[in-house]
Amino acid sequence: MIEVGIFGGSGYTGGELLRLLSAHPEVEVVVVTSRRFGGKPVSSLHRHLDGIYDLSFENPTPAEVGDRCDLVFTAVPHGSAMGIVPELLDSAKVIDLSADYRLPPRVFEAIYGLEHSDAREAVYGLPEIHTVAGHDLVANPGCYPTGAVLAAAPLASERLLSLAVFDSKSGISGAGAEPSMVSHYPEMAENVQPYKLTTHRHRAEIVQELGRLDGGSASISFTPHVVPSVRGILTTAHLFTRESVDGEEIRKLYEKFYKNKPFIRLRETIPSLPAVRGSNFCDIYIETDDDNNRVVVITAIDNLVKGASGQAIQNMNLIFNLDETTGLWQPGLAP
Amino acid sequence: MIEVGIFGGSGYTGGELLRLLSAHPEVEVVVVTSRRFGGKPVSSLHRHLDGIYDLSFENPTPAEVGDRCDLVFTAVPHGSAMGIVPELLDSAKVIDLSADYRLPPRVFEAIYGLEHSDAREAVYGLPEIHTVAGHDLVANPGCYPTGAVLAAAPLASERLLSLAVFDSKSGISGAGAEPSMVSHYPEMAENVQPYKLTTHRHRAEIVQELGRLDGGSASISFTPHVVPSVRGILTTAHLFTRESVDGEEIRKLYEKFYKNKPFIRLRETIPSLPAVRGSNFCDIYIETDDDNNRVVVITAIDNLVKGASGQAIQNMNLIFNLDETTGLWQPGLAP
Amino acid sequence: MIEVGIFGGSGYTGGELLRLLSAHPEVEVVVVTSRRFGGKPVSSLHRHLDGIYDLSFENPTPAEVGDRCDLVFTAVPHGSAMGIVPELLDSAKVIDLSADYRLPPRVFEAIYGLEHSDAREAVYGLPEIHTVAGHDLVANPGCYPTGAVLAAAPLASERLLSLAVFDSKSGISGAGAEPSMVSHYPEMAENVQPYKLTTHRHRAEIVQELGRLDGGSASISFTPHVVPSVRGILTTAHLFTRESVDGEEIRKLYEKFYKNKPFIRLRETIPSLPAVRGSNFCDIYIETDDDNNRVVVITAIDNLVKGASGQAIQNMNLIFNLDETTGLWQPGLAP
Amino acid sequence: MIEVGIFGGSGYTGGELLRLLSAHPEVEVVVVTSRRFGGKPVSSLHRHLDGIYDLSFENPTPAEVGDRCDLVFTAVPHGSAMGIVPELLDSAKVIDLSADYRLPPRVFEAIYGLEHSDAREAVYGLPEIHTVAGHDLVANPGCYPTGAVLAAAPLASERLLSLAVFDSKSGISGAGAEPSMVSHYPEMAENVQPYKLTTHRHRAEIVQELGRLDGGSASISFTPHVVPSVRGILTTAHLFTRESVDGEEIRKLYEKFYKNKPFIRLRETIPSLPAVRGSNFCDIYIETDDDNNRVVVITAIDNLVKGASGQAIQNMNLIFNLDETTGLWQPGLAP
Repeated sequence: MIEVGIFGGSGYTGGELLRLLSAHPEVEVVVVTSRRFGGKPVSSLHRHLDGIYDLSFENPTPAEVGDRCDLVFTAVPHGSAMGIVPELLDSAKVIDLSADYRLPPRVFEAIYGLEHSDAREAVYGLPEIHTVAGHDLVANPGCYPTGAVLAAAPLASERLLSLAVFDSKSGISGAGAEPSMVSHYPEMAENVQPYKLTTHRHRAEIVQELGRLDGGSASISFTPHVVPSVRGILTTAHLFTRESVDGEEIRKLYEKFYKNKPFIRLRETIPSLPAVRGSNFCDIYIETDDDNNRVVVITAIDNLVKGASGQAIQNMNLIFNLDETTGLWQPGLAP
Repeated sequence: MIEVGIFGGSGYTGGELLRLLSAHPEVEVVVVTSRRFGGKPVSSLHRHLDGIYDLSFENPTPAEVGDRCDLVFTAVPHGSAMGIVPELLDSAKVIDLSADYRLPPRVFEAIYGLEHSDAREAVYGLPEIHTVAGHDLVANPGCYPTGAVLAAAPLASERLLSLAVFDSKSGISGAGAEPSMVSHYPEMAENVQPYKLTTHRHRAEIVQELGRLDGGSASISFTPHVVPSVRGILTTAHLFTRESVDGEEIRKLYEKFYKNKPFIRLRETIPSLPAVRGSNFCDIYIETDDDNNRVVVITAIDNLVKGASGQAIQNMNLIFNLDETTGLWQPGLAP
Repeated sequence: MIEVGIFGGSGYTGGELLRLLSAHPEVEVVVVTSRRFGGKPVSSLHRHLDGIYDLSFENPTPAEVGDRCDLVFTAVPHGSAMGIVPELLDSAKVIDLSADYRLPPRVFEAIYGLEHSDAREAVYGLPEIHTVAGHDLVANPGCYPTGAVLAAAPLASERLLSLAVFDSKSGISGAGAEPSMVSHYPEMAENVQPYKLTTHRHRAEIVQELGRLDGGSASISFTPHVVPSVRGILTTAHLFTRESVDGEEIRKLYEKFYKNKPFIRLRETIPSLPAVRGSNFCDIYIETDDDNNRVVVITAIDNLVKGASGQAIQNMNLIFNLDETTGLWQPGLAP
Repeated sequence: MIEVGIFGGSGYTGGELLRLLSAHPEVEVVVVTSRRFGGKPVSSLHRHLDGIYDLSFENPTPAEVGDRCDLVFTAVPHGSAMGIVPELLDSAKVIDLSADYRLPPRVFEAIYGLEHSDAREAVYGLPEIHTVAGHDLVANPGCYPTGAVLAAAPLASERLLSLAVFDSKSGISGAGAEPSMVSHYPEMAENVQPYKLTTHRHRAEIVQELGRLDGGSASISFTPHVVPSVRGILTTAHLFTRESVDGEEIRKLYEKFYKNKPFIRLRETIPSLPAVRGSNFCDIYIETDDDNNRVVVITAIDNLVKGASGQAIQNMNLIFNLDETTGLWQPGLAP
C-alpha cells in the first residue's frame, strides 16, 4: 500500500482527493492536515465522506507529514507550497496542486506577484504530453490549462496553429470552498460571468505548454467565464490554422496524438459536462469551419478531477509505476 | 409626488424597493442611505438600476432623512430599526421592513434575544387581513408569515383549523446580499436545505396572526427550507380541520375572504414561482384530502416583493389613500 | 461472476444500474435490452459510459434474457413488468424496479388503474426493514416511499406515531429521461413545483409499509414536490406522536433500529443532497418540537441510487449472499 | 391608443410581448392568435398574466387580424411569416419576429432551406444601427445577432476589424416553449452545451450587418452555446484589429457611436445577465489585450427582450414616432 498524505485537506481539491482515493486499491490515506480544522473529523467538513473515512484533520509539521508518507499531495494556496515542499521531499514524493512549480520562478514571480524561494524543477503533470514516471515532484496543472492545452496540442505539435482563442466556461467550484461574491448564489444563478478577460494567470501555462510543442509560433488568447454549474470546464478552442486543413486529417492527427491515452475520449458528438462529471475523462470533439481556416475544438473536463485531484492521482499512479487508470476508471455521474 | 426615503438601501430589499418604485407614478425617491457605501452611486451596487436612478448613497442622520421625506422605508437589521424609527416618525411616516415592530416587545425580546427600546404600536402590514390606512407606522410582515398566514387565514377565521403544518420552500435571496455558507453556490445548487426545523423566528408571527383570527385554537408547526432558486417562497400548508369539510365550500370561503383583494389570485391549477416572480401577487390553490380531514393549500409569492418590498409599497399606497395597486400592477417575469 | 441483464436499459435507472455495476467486483453485465435503441452502442445514449462498457442494446425475448443471466433487473414501465417477469423467473432471479409487485394485485389495480396478471408474491426490497435474502423476486421500492418509510419506521415500530405528514422534495430526474413540460428547463428552473398534492400513487406504499409496523394506527399524508435539482429526494417528515417523547430517547430508538444498517447514516447536522449524491446512503436527522408532540425527521437520498438502482444492487447482493455493501461503498459526489 | 395584435401568441416571445405591452401607456392589445389554443384564456397558458389580461386566444384569418389592428407582431415559425405578412400589410404595419425578412430571399433560401415567396424589403430592426421610423415592415433581428452586432459595430464602422470570433452563451428559453432534449432539465442543469459550432443560421445576419458597416472586410466566426439559465445572452466578442489600438480611443469610439442610444449602457465593470434580465438594455464592456491586437467586448442582453420582444416594441415606438423608450424604461430584475 502506498501511504499517502494530503497537506491542506479542507478545500474542494482536498475533499476530492479523499473521495477519489477511497476507490483506489493501492492507497491508504494516513494523514490529512488543516490548520483551521485540526482535531475535527474529516467528515464533519466533508460530509459526503461520513462512514467512508474515520480520519480527523491534523496539524503536524511538513517534516512529520513527509516521514509518515510515501507521497504527499499539497493542496495549499499559491505561494505557500514552496515553503512546504522542500521539507516534504526529504522523505516523500510530492504532487503539488498549487501553481508554485508550474512555471519557471521568474515567470511565476511576474505573473503571481510573489517571490519564489525554491528554484528546483518539477515535471508539468499533464501526462498526455509529459513523461511523469521517474519524477519525485510533480507540478499538477491548472484546471483551465488542462482543458485548453489538450484541445490544441495535436495542432501545435504539427506547427499548424497560427492563432488560438480559448473561451472557457467553468463551474463555480473553481472559486473554492470559501463563500465570496463570485460564488454568491443569487448573483451567479441565471448568470454567465466573464472575468479577467485578458489577464488570467492560467494563460501563462497555456502559452508555456503549447510553446513547448510549436516553439511559440501561435498567438494565444484566453478568456475565462463562470457559468451556473458546480463542476466542469468546457473549453471552446477557436483554432486558426496556417493553411487550409482537411477535417478528416485533423481527426486522424488527434487520434494518433492521443493513442493509448486512456482518459482522452475523442467523441463523435459534441461533449457535455454531465458525461465527465466526477470522472477523470477529457472528452474532445473537433469540427472544421472551411470558410476561414478555423478548427473548433471542444473539450470537457471535471475541473476538480481531470482539472485537479484526479489528474494528481493519475500522476501518482505513473510515479509508482501503476497502471495510469488504477482507482480512476470510473464513469461520470450523469444525469 | 410622495417624497420617499430608503434607510438602509444596499441590500436586496433596498434594491427591490428602488426597482419597484421606479414604476410608481406618485413617488419620487429623494434619499437612499448606506453607511458602508455612502458617496457611491446607487447603480454601482445595484447594477440593474443603471440609467434608471441617478442617486448616490448618503449617510445622513435619521432626523435629516425624516425631514426630507413624506415616508421612509427602513430596511435595516433586526434590532436596529427601533433606534431609528422614533426620530423618523417626528416628521415622516414609516414602513419598517425589519422585525422590530411585528411582535409585542416582550415577545420580540424572547424570540430575538434583543432588548426592545420602543414600545409604540404599529399596524401589522398584511393588508389582506389588517386595515393599514390611517397608520403612521407599519410593521411590514416577514416573508414566510406572508405566505403562511395567507394560506390559512380563511380557515382560521372560521375556527375550522385544528392543526397546521407549514412546510415552506424559499429562494436563496432570502438569506440576503452578503455571501455566506448558506448562499455558497456549490453548496446550494442541486440541493434542498431545511433549517431551523422547529425554531424559526417567523413562527411567532404566524402564531400571532392566525391566533388573532381563531383565538389560538390551532396547533401550528413551521419548518423552512432553502431551495436552489433566487426568488420566491412556495408554502405547502397541510391544514387539518376540526371536522370533515367540503372542497367546494372551502373554495367559496376563500373566494369570499379574499374578495376585492387584488393581489390574491385563487388559481385553478397548482401555483408555481415563475408566475409570481417580480410581482406582488400571492397565488393560492386549494385541494382537499377527504381521507383525513386535510386541506392542502399552496401559496406562491416572490419573497422580495409580496414578501417584502412590494408589500411595503402596497402599505404605502394604503397610507396615502392611493389605490392599493398603484405602481404595483405588473405581471410576473416568466419564464 | 454473477451474470446480470438489464431489461429496459435506456432510461435513467438503466443508465444508473450500469454506472454502479461498473464498480461491482462480482458482476458482469451480459445483456442490456431496449426496443427503441436495439443495435446501438449503450454509450451512444449513456455518454458517460463511453470507454466503460463495450455493449450494444439488444432486443431479445424475455426467455432469452433469462437464459443468459443469473439475475435480471427489470426497468420497464409500470404494468409492463408483470408480462416479462414470469418468463424471466424460469431461469433467473429478478429485481423489478417497476411498481408491479410492490402492492397486492387488488391494491395495485385500484391505484394504478391497470389489470394485474401475475399474483405471485415478491419481497418488498427495503432491506433495512425486510429480509431480502432467500427470495427470487424482489419488488424494488418507489423512490418517495424509501425516503418516507425510513424516516418514520422506528417510530411506527413502537406504535408511537399518530399522524405523519411527509412533505417530499424531489430532483427532476425522477420524471425520467423523456422530455415533457414538467422537465422543461425554463419552467422548472427557479421554481418549486408541488403536484398530486393528495393523490400520489406512492402514498399506498408508505401506508402499506408503515402499516406493517404499527398495524395501520397512524394517519398518513404525503405531498410531493419537484425542485430544481437533477438528483435527490429530501423528505421532511412531520411526525406527531401519541404522547410527549424525549429527544434523546427518540434518537436512541433510531440508533437501535438502524444498528448494522450500513447505508443509514444518523447525522448530527441537518442532511443535504450533495452529501448523498450518487451514493446509496440515506442520511437521517431527528429534531423534536416539544411544543406540540412533533418530531421532525429529515431524510436525504439520491432518488436514482438508494431510491432505485443502488437499492436494487443492494438487494442483489443480499440475494447472492454477498456483503450488502459490495460495489456500493462509495461516497457521494460533493460539491 | 395603438391597437395591436399578436399573430402567434402562445410561445415565449408572444408571452413576453404581452408582459411588456401591459406597461405600455399607448397600446391596447386587441387580438392574440393561436391555432392550438384558440378559445382558451391567454392566462391559462401564460399564467403570470392572470389578472393582467382578460383576453382569450383567437384563430382568425390574417386579413381579419390586420383589419382590427394598427400594428401586428408576427411571432410564427421561420417560413410561416411570409405567408401571413402580405395580407396583414394591407391594413396594418407589421413587425416580424421570424427570420423571414432579415436576409435577401436568396440568402434566406440558402441558409434556411426554404423557398421564399415574398420579395418585399423590410428594414432590419436594430435601431441602434438602422433608421426604423418611416417603415411599415420591420424584420426584427435574431437574438444572437443583436448581441454580436452591437458588440462589434463601432469597430466595423471604422473598418478596424480584421477577425471577429463571437462566442455566445444563451439561456435555454431561446429553445422555445416546447419541451425537447435540449431543454430537458436533467440534461441541461450543470451543463454548458455548445451546438452548431460553425453552422448556426444567425451567422448570416451577423455577416450581413457588419458587412454593411465595413464592406465585408472582416473574417467572422460565430459559435453558440446554451448555458443553464432561463434568459439572457452573453456574447464574448474576441475582436482582432488591423492595427494596434488604444484602449481609451476604443472606448471613445463606442461612446460616440452609441451616443443617444438609450438602451445601450457602456459599463465600467464586466456585465452580467441579472442586470439586464427582463429589460431592454444591452450592457457593453470593452477591454483591450495589448499583446495581440485583441479587443474583448462583452455584451449582455435578455434574449426575450432586447433579443426579441422588447426590441420589437422599441421598433413599434419608432414607427409610431413615440419616444423609443415608451413603456420599455424598466430596470432589470436582479437578483
